[in-house]
Amino acid sequence: MAELNNQWRLKRRPEPGEVMNSDLVEWVSEPIPEAGDGEVLVKTICLATSPAQFGYTIDRGGLFDVLPIGAVMRGRGVGQVVASRHPAYEIGEIVTASCGWQNYSVIQPDTAGQSIATIQKVRRPISPLTTAVGVLGVDGFTAYFELLEVGKPNPGDTLVVSAAAGGIGSLVGQIGKLKGCRVIGICGSDEKCRWLTQELGFDGAVNYKSQNVDEALTELCPKGVDVFFDNVGGDILDTVLAHLAIGARVVICGYIATDYAADKGTGPKNYIYLLRRRASMTGTIVFDFVERFSEAEDQLRDWLSRGLIKNTEDVDNGLEKMPGALSSLFTGANRGIKIVRVAPDPGGLEQL
Amino acid sequence: MAELNNQWRLKRRPEPGEVMNSDLVEWVSEPIPEAGDGEVLVKTICLATSPAQFGYTIDRGGLFDVLPIGAVMRGRGVGQVVASRHPAYEIGEIVTASCGWQNYSVIQPDTAGQSIATIQKVRRPISPLTTAVGVLGVDGFTAYFELLEVGKPNPGDTLVVSAAAGGIGSLVGQIGKLKGCRVIGICGSDEKCRWLTQELGFDGAVNYKSQNVDEALTELCPKGVDVFFDNVGGDILDTVLAHLAIGARVVICGYIATDYAADKGTGPKNYIYLLRRRASMTGTIVFDFVERFSEAEDQLRDWLSRGLIKNTEDVDNGLEKMPGALSSLFTGANRGIKIVRVAPDPGGLEQL
Repeated sequence: MAELNNQWRLKRRPEPGEVMNSDLVEWVSEPIPEAGDGEVLVKTICLATSPAQFGYTIDRGGLFDVLPIGAVMRGRGVGQVVASRHPAYEIGEIVTASCGWQNYSVIQPDTAGQSIATIQKVRRPISPLTTAVGVLGVDGFTAYFELLEVGKPNPGDTLVVSAAAGGIGSLVGQIGKLKGCRVIGICGSDEKCRWLTQELGFDGAVNYKSQNVDEALTELCPKGVDVFFDNVGGDILDTVLAHLAIGARVVICGYIATDYAADKGTGPKNYIYLLRRRASMTGTIVFDFVERFSEAEDQLRDWLSRGLIKNTEDVDNGLEKMPGALSSLFTGANRGIKIVRVAPDPGGLEQL
Repeated sequence: MAELNNQWRLKRRPEPGEVMNSDLVEWVSEPIPEAGDGEVLVKTICLATSPAQFGYTIDRGGLFDVLPIGAVMRGRGVGQVVASRHPAYEIGEIVTASCGWQNYSVIQPDTAGQSIATIQKVRRPISPLTTAVGVLGVDGFTAYFELLEVGKPNPGDTLVVSAAAGGIGSLVGQIGKLKGCRVIGICGSDEKCRWLTQELGFDGAVNYKSQNVDEALTELCPKGVDVFFDNVGGDILDTVLAHLAIGARVVICGYIATDYAADKGTGPKNYIYLLRRRASMTGTIVFDFVERFSEAEDQLRDWLSRGLIKNTEDVDNGLEKMPGALSSLFTGANRGIKIVRVAPDPGGLEQL
């Protein structure tokens, strides 16, 4: 029986209040496509998860590029070139690309980057290849640039991270420690709190589901918060704003507590503390630093190889796991960088 | 009949939803106080108005230092030293000080600055002395530093100012023009719009009471807003956030649209545009620049003397006018820098 291209396609749009769940997508199996002139065929090895993948399914408000009903779910992954009709790509090369939630994808390198699609060769691929969409991929680069370039942490600063046990958060905290910060993580379970403090070196952690965040921050951050790296928005953002130190920097990386599918959200009423504390709140998108990705990759690879940061990836196996994996970002069921492995790593990576 | 010290004292705290009005204060006449050891007696010549003067009357939320019931209303003014038991101050000197809403105040220069009270000698006082709490005072310094140091306008940038016909806004727009910006003001009447565009050189103006601000900005700022200087917060902030250009800077100077007396406000739900547009929102307080006030004063004095900026002061006469003058900041009845003259300028200023 010939191998098929299994895919997750968008079935319907989410309702207000709904987060990612498996009912929004359907499993479809099709013949493997062929690469046309100037195209490459990429076999998916693993797929990253990102709240944006759910954001694309929504057609309200326009904060994301809307995915049509019936289209393959968007997502970045690591893949191997298995057929190429583009002179710059050879069979066997390892790439990160906008594979989508499927086993095989056709990418046009010459138009990638003009749209939401991207393809980029993986320099010095290491096994497991999940690293290339994990610590050495966009989550790693996001933590690196958005903390260091926007948060501008100084030694001795108090750094607070929300969704601290998530992919980006778990790296931000570790990088903050390397830069001499006192690091406090906010997450959703006691088990995650223990993981942050006992395994990742955080100085403190707050379980927002069982603790009063305001009181916990009063105790854990007596001199206020110098850098707040925010992945969630909502009530946690509001609470932390009231704890900012003079001259604090708030990095807006994400807002997963927001109802993505609703027409209107609420804003941080405590934004007034920006004035009271002469603080700034800055939104940033990692792709603005794309020219410097190799710098981040080299630094993160060095820290990783020397054991200075831990690889926090959290891998599910099988393309069929993608809806649940993405859902876990919204429910908090993940711990670390949630990645789905779709196919085994190919052999002979060290020769690439 | 001996001269008395007339005062406005706080009678009660405002209710949620209430803004400044004369019913909150009462008129009291007392003997003129005497300066004790290390103190100076200052005769009030004119008083500035600032939303903070109302903020002090509120004892909820803690954003302002609370004024006790029965205390003299706080406010900065220009005054003349009429008695001195402090070696650094001589009778006749012109100062700006925390005079309060009264004819005479006793100031302790050695402890001023450790509390909310301040006293500072006026360099080269010019008539009218209102200028020293106007263009060459805190409103002028606020416009100067908060626009230039925080907004960082570049030539060709689109600068939008809210409460543009107010004291600070009318100066921000004029300074923005001097720096080569395209300047759009948001204000509350067609008459103010005409004043901004026909007399102050703004490139455009929006009457938020009669126009749809969103549509007006789409038309007036087709390339988006590079710098937003916000004095109001609320719906206008939300609307402008959705028009930010990539890399925009939002300066949070004030939030007069907020219900100061309520426990809770609403936040800018469109803060998410900070992420989408990689923009920043920064709160700033002019007193952080106090070491550089003389630099601002020199520059503003130069611009004023060469006719490059217009003095937008709007003076009422008589201490009894203070409640209405402060109220006008909230109702929009003012145009420009609202100042109340309490006594005539003394003669011989050029010799000081």
